[in-house]
Amino acid sequence: MQTRIRDYGVRIGELNTGRLNKITDVSGVKIGHSTISNGVVNTGVTALHPHSGNIFEQKVVSAAHVFNGFGKSIGLLQIEELGTIETPILLTNTLSIGTCTNSLITYMLDKNGQIGRTTGTVNPVIGECNDMFLNDIRELAIREDHVLEALETAADDFEEGGVGAGTGMKCFGLKGGIGSSSRVIQFPHGAYTIGVLTLTNFGVLENLRINGIHAGEKIRNKLPDNSSEPDKGSVIVLVATDLPVTSRQLKRVIKRAGVGLSRTGSYIGNGSGDIVIGFSTANKVSHDPAQDLVSLTAIHEDDIDQAFTAVADATEEAVLNSMITANTVKGRDGHTLYSLRKYIDDLL
Amino acid sequence: MQTRIRDYGVRIGELNTGRLNKITDVSGVKIGHSTISNGVVNTGVTALHPHSGNIFEQKVVSAAHVFNGFGKSIGLLQIEELGTIETPILLTNTLSIGTCTNSLITYMLDKNGQIGRTTGTVNPVIGECNDMFLNDIRELAIREDHVLEALETAADDFEEGGVGAGTGMKCFGLKGGIGSSSRVIQFPHGAYTIGVLTLTNFGVLENLRINGIHAGEKIRNKLPDNSSEPDKGSVIVLVATDLPVTSRQLKRVIKRAGVGLSRTGSYIGNGSGDIVIGFSTANKVSHDPAQDLVSLTAIHEDDIDQAFTAVADATEEAVLNSMITANTVKGRDGHTLYSLRKYIDDLL
Amino acid sequence: MQTRIRDYGVRIGELNTGRLNKITDVSGVKIGHSTISNGVVNTGVTALHPHSGNIFEQKVVSAAHVFNGFGKSIGLLQIEELGTIETPILLTNTLSIGTCTNSLITYMLDKNGQIGRTTGTVNPVIGECNDMFLNDIRELAIREDHVLEALETAADDFEEGGVGAGTGMKCFGLKGGIGSSSRVIQFPHGAYTIGVLTLTNFGVLENLRINGIHAGEKIRNKLPDNSSEPDKGSVIVLVATDLPVTSRQLKRVIKRAGVGLSRTGSYIGNGSGDIVIGFSTANKVSHDPAQDLVSLTAIHEDDIDQAFTAVADATEEAVLNSMITANTVKGRDGHTLYSLRKYIDDLL
Amino acid sequence: MQTRIRDYGVRIGELNTGRLNKITDVSGVKIGHSTISNGVVNTGVTALHPHSGNIFEQKVVSAAHVFNGFGKSIGLLQIEELGTIETPILLTNTLSIGTCTNSLITYMLDKNGQIGRTTGTVNPVIGECNDMFLNDIRELAIREDHVLEALETAADDFEEGGVGAGTGMKCFGLKGGIGSSSRVIQFPHGAYTIGVLTLTNFGVLENLRINGIHAGEKIRNKLPDNSSEPDKGSVIVLVATDLPVTSRQLKRVIKRAGVGLSRTGSYIGNGSGDIVIGFSTANKVSHDPAQDLVSLTAIHEDDIDQAFTAVADATEEAVLNSMITANTVKGRDGHTLYSLRKYIDDLL
Repeated sequence: MQTRIRDYGVRIGELNTGRLNKITDVSGVKIGHSTISNGVVNTGVTALHPHSGNIFEQKVVSAAHVFNGFGKSIGLLQIEELGTIETPILLTNTLSIGTCTNSLITYMLDKNGQIGRTTGTVNPVIGECNDMFLNDIRELAIREDHVLEALETAADDFEEGGVGAGTGMKCFGLKGGIGSSSRVIQFPHGAYTIGVLTLTNFGVLENLRINGIHAGEKIRNKLPDNSSEPDKGSVIVLVATDLPVTSRQLKRVIKRAGVGLSRTGSYIGNGSGDIVIGFSTANKVSHDPAQDLVSLTAIHEDDIDQAFTAVADATEEAVLNSMITANTVKGRDGHTLYSLRKYIDDLL
Repeated sequence: MQTRIRDYGVRIGELNTGRLNKITDVSGVKIGHSTISNGVVNTGVTALHPHSGNIFEQKVVSAAHVFNGFGKSIGLLQIEELGTIETPILLTNTLSIGTCTNSLITYMLDKNGQIGRTTGTVNPVIGECNDMFLNDIRELAIREDHVLEALETAADDFEEGGVGAGTGMKCFGLKGGIGSSSRVIQFPHGAYTIGVLTLTNFGVLENLRINGIHAGEKIRNKLPDNSSEPDKGSVIVLVATDLPVTSRQLKRVIKRAGVGLSRTGSYIGNGSGDIVIGFSTANKVSHDPAQDLVSLTAIHEDDIDQAFTAVADATEEAVLNSMITANTVKGRDGHTLYSLRKYIDDLL
Repeated sequence: MQTRIRDYGVRIGELNTGRLNKITDVSGVKIGHSTISNGVVNTGVTALHPHSGNIFEQKVVSAAHVFNGFGKSIGLLQIEELGTIETPILLTNTLSIGTCTNSLITYMLDKNGQIGRTTGTVNPVIGECNDMFLNDIRELAIREDHVLEALETAADDFEEGGVGAGTGMKCFGLKGGIGSSSRVIQFPHGAYTIGVLTLTNFGVLENLRINGIHAGEKIRNKLPDNSSEPDKGSVIVLVATDLPVTSRQLKRVIKRAGVGLSRTGSYIGNGSGDIVIGFSTANKVSHDPAQDLVSLTAIHEDDIDQAFTAVADATEEAVLNSMITANTVKGRDGHTLYSLRKYIDDLL
Repeated sequence: MQTRIRDYGVRIGELNTGRLNKITDVSGVKIGHSTISNGVVNTGVTALHPHSGNIFEQKVVSAAHVFNGFGKSIGLLQIEELGTIETPILLTNTLSIGTCTNSLITYMLDKNGQIGRTTGTVNPVIGECNDMFLNDIRELAIREDHVLEALETAADDFEEGGVGAGTGMKCFGLKGGIGSSSRVIQFPHGAYTIGVLTLTNFGVLENLRINGIHAGEKIRNKLPDNSSEPDKGSVIVLVATDLPVTSRQLKRVIKRAGVGLSRTGSYIGNGSGDIVIGFSTANKVSHDPAQDLVSLTAIHEDDIDQAFTAVADATEEAVLNSMITANTVKGRDGHTLYSLRKYIDDLL
């Protein structure tokens, strides 16, 4: 089991976490990784299944929001228009979005014989960050079998840090990658889980804050190479929930990921393509037309503040988890990124 | 009774109209006018009540879309965020938006003692066009009692043409103003009405098309002054329906007003602040918080094309109605706008 | 030489066209096709080069607008954020977006050794429509060499109709595909060209209008199979100009493509992913950072109406050109789409 | 002179401030207040002049961004469309937006005889927050002379805290109001100033952070009434700069106000209408049409990160200044808001 930021006594906010404190605390959500790490190539794919059924037939209510559009993520137009996601979500490196798109289309065609025959096409959803610091990204190392591995090994629990799409990522000048966290919110009408997964590849070292502590400035002086670079990374935030919401409400909820990012020290740099994609499993949307009106449930708008807080807090914690779980990695051209674990004891 | 475009044999699209072929065919919707017309001052207010109950307590699902933001309409931010309207909607001239805002706030405070005491404030919704061609707009002639007159005389049937907010408006170089139309759409789960009201103050004469006929070019040669001016007007389109839709779906539906505008000859000119605001009375949204989840109904997305067609067709017809019902008016500085009725017989 | 809609006496608007009346009238713009047509597979790729230099080093000012986001086009996020395009633009079928992305990335890596080494990554721009009616789209027939063929054979003049990405497309129930048109606009400070290229795959037959004439209703009665289908297509509009504009102004300009689409009879159907992407070659944007401020020129906003009219008119004509130049095609499962040429003589 | 957060040793970020560390460090910007404070009425108006010339004739490049649209601010549609501001900017309480609109229109008509005669109308820009906790907002106490007082007394230096529009505002459960800060950024091509003014009326006490320190939790235990309320406030952020930017770039820059807000502890609550409006004085935009193309300068996009950091840091400091400069106020119904000064010494 990996040591996480909470194990160091860092507790973000006052809400309780879910059982694993991961996005998979939302029932049905599964995460899988495919990792390539061989010296100069350090990259991979991470896949998220929104639920265990046929996602094309039973779509999830969804929303997306772009904090900074200096990025190449795929599939957001249709999410914005229709408020649904109809495929698993993939994360990968920037130059592998084409391969991931192709592989996800093939995967969906295999499972849904009607696509392109008796019904229309399918909208693949892919998020990306640029891992060129550690990874020889021009190698285009991701192949279809990596995508399938991530999709097919997805499970209720999963590793964080320098794994899957996070293998080559860099966060606040240290090693970043995959991190996750969750929160439980309570209403008279029930308890709901909000889970967050981040692919972290953003930030300037001296800005790093751990629950308010100006950690980055302290680490900078200890780093072998204390040069600071402009933020050329990106971060993708995935938000899952079983809270019944409309896509309009969900869009409001997921925007609060920006609060969590800001509290870790991001200023959403020019070169950082910061994007959040979210979905709710509470109201499935049937692909097939209906003879009747569709019935939905949703929270009253006055209930939404708890969800805002949950997303902000879980995003902040997920970013820290992505760093604290990652190991030090030496990659392309001898570039080295150190683990936050190396410095954490002197900070808290 | 006014003669309307359909009385001239012009039939837009294949869907049936509602009983009056007006926005008030949507049950509960009421329209009222206050008209000032005295030589150099030609302006007014038009008010729309979305339903007959307390609109602050029982809000309507709503959406707004801006085709061209060269305009000063008020209240759209909150419609976009919350997907609801909580006041009547007012239309007026551009420089009277402040007075209308004030008057509508006072009207709402009178009816809702809790505003600013035990609950928050209220979001007034005002649309406007610039009627300076016929109206001495610098006079700021609209007063609070005009607004109250429009609000309090609202009824199920109403006049079109140069009346209310339409008193001084200009459309395709001719007299414009208030026009309306409606359509009925049929599903296995029921029949629904979509009504449109337009405040028309846009367009260049030579571009006018009547159901595809290039009418503007023909009229241009008959006009005393055949000069053509840049489009400095605006158009406000209001869409009402009893179709059960989410605010996301409603936004998609009302965007098709742009199709209707385009078919009349608009190219959405630089100076034309073209805005559409819509609401559905099917799912009321309670102001007061709820202990339970809220239940909604909505159409399946595959049902939405009929609503698209209805809005496009009703908007096209409403624009033509605003022109054909308007009388010739002489206003400020001797400026004269002729009625389309003067030319219609030679066109069809 | 192909017979175009203007050869039938149809003249859209009052502005003059450019020399070829095609998008390539904008100096530097080049178009290339790769066509696959073998019975059940009818598809292809069309490539647009914005200028003849290195587009990654000298980006073009750009903008994009989504009329309806039921589509899978790629690259729009970064256009919206940064206001630039840095690759050629590809058009293809919906399920080949991954292959086109991959191929365009490889193409850019080959020409720009610094990508992923000393500078960041690259933003591929791909538009798509679903050609499954005539094309066995599940075959994923597009390969990297098709993309390269389109890119490398691009020229100043090009074929329209059922060619390149247009090979399998369907427009208003007839054969659609690639169509183009251009307009020249005049100011005291110079003359400028606005060119449009459309990939047409949208519309319901009975709605088709040819310069205002209700052509679709007449054709419907003559078609062997006169059934009408919901609009499940899409249209991609590309706009090129040498007019000096900021990306904000350009976004305003390209939105008027919606006016042209509406005038042909589109109501921007639910299933139609209608997107416009535009660029201006007037102010190149250097990839490399600058020591100084950047100097730009742009039109005064009061000059913009001519550009609006030009885009509306050229879009309307480009759609008609895409249909009138296309031949009748029999494709997958014996599906047949007829050429508008078969009916045109009885309509005008 | 008021004691500000920097006087307590709190230093946000590493950039230097301007001379006054206020928004008026941007040359030409002037701020004026009108304050009403008489027991149950605690409200006012704050006015900002973007430059000392005729703002209608020489507009400023501008942008606006809505973090949360639960607000009633006026004038944003046209800013978004045209990228310019053509009036002074007013801040006030929510229910006085109509009066401020009216007064600002009258003010502009007085100074510009051509409005509504030989040119079109004018777009008033008004921001608002709900001050009902301390202010009897139903009194609609703001009159035209208050607006004129704010406009006409505007100067290079100005008071912060519970003054002008800030008179009745509440921030993190303590007294909020008007706060300001500025930063200077350096390039080879020159030094530029970015100034921020905030009207603060947002936040939940326990979330307050002072440069990372969890101050709110500590204060909560010391407050007479330690109850915490949902965030029903709002915050308006105004950003001024002399940095040459396009409106697209400016929009990117001002969005980073959200980073500063988040670092103070905001999660952008449901009821908080959080809006930022910005302008650059570097490229004036002439109202009158031009015979020639317009020449502009702008930074290269790679220079933009410094501006992002400046806005984030100055916003964070402006919020803290609004609180630390405000005095304890007892208002409507005996509601009392305490000054942060009462608690600050125990926090740092």
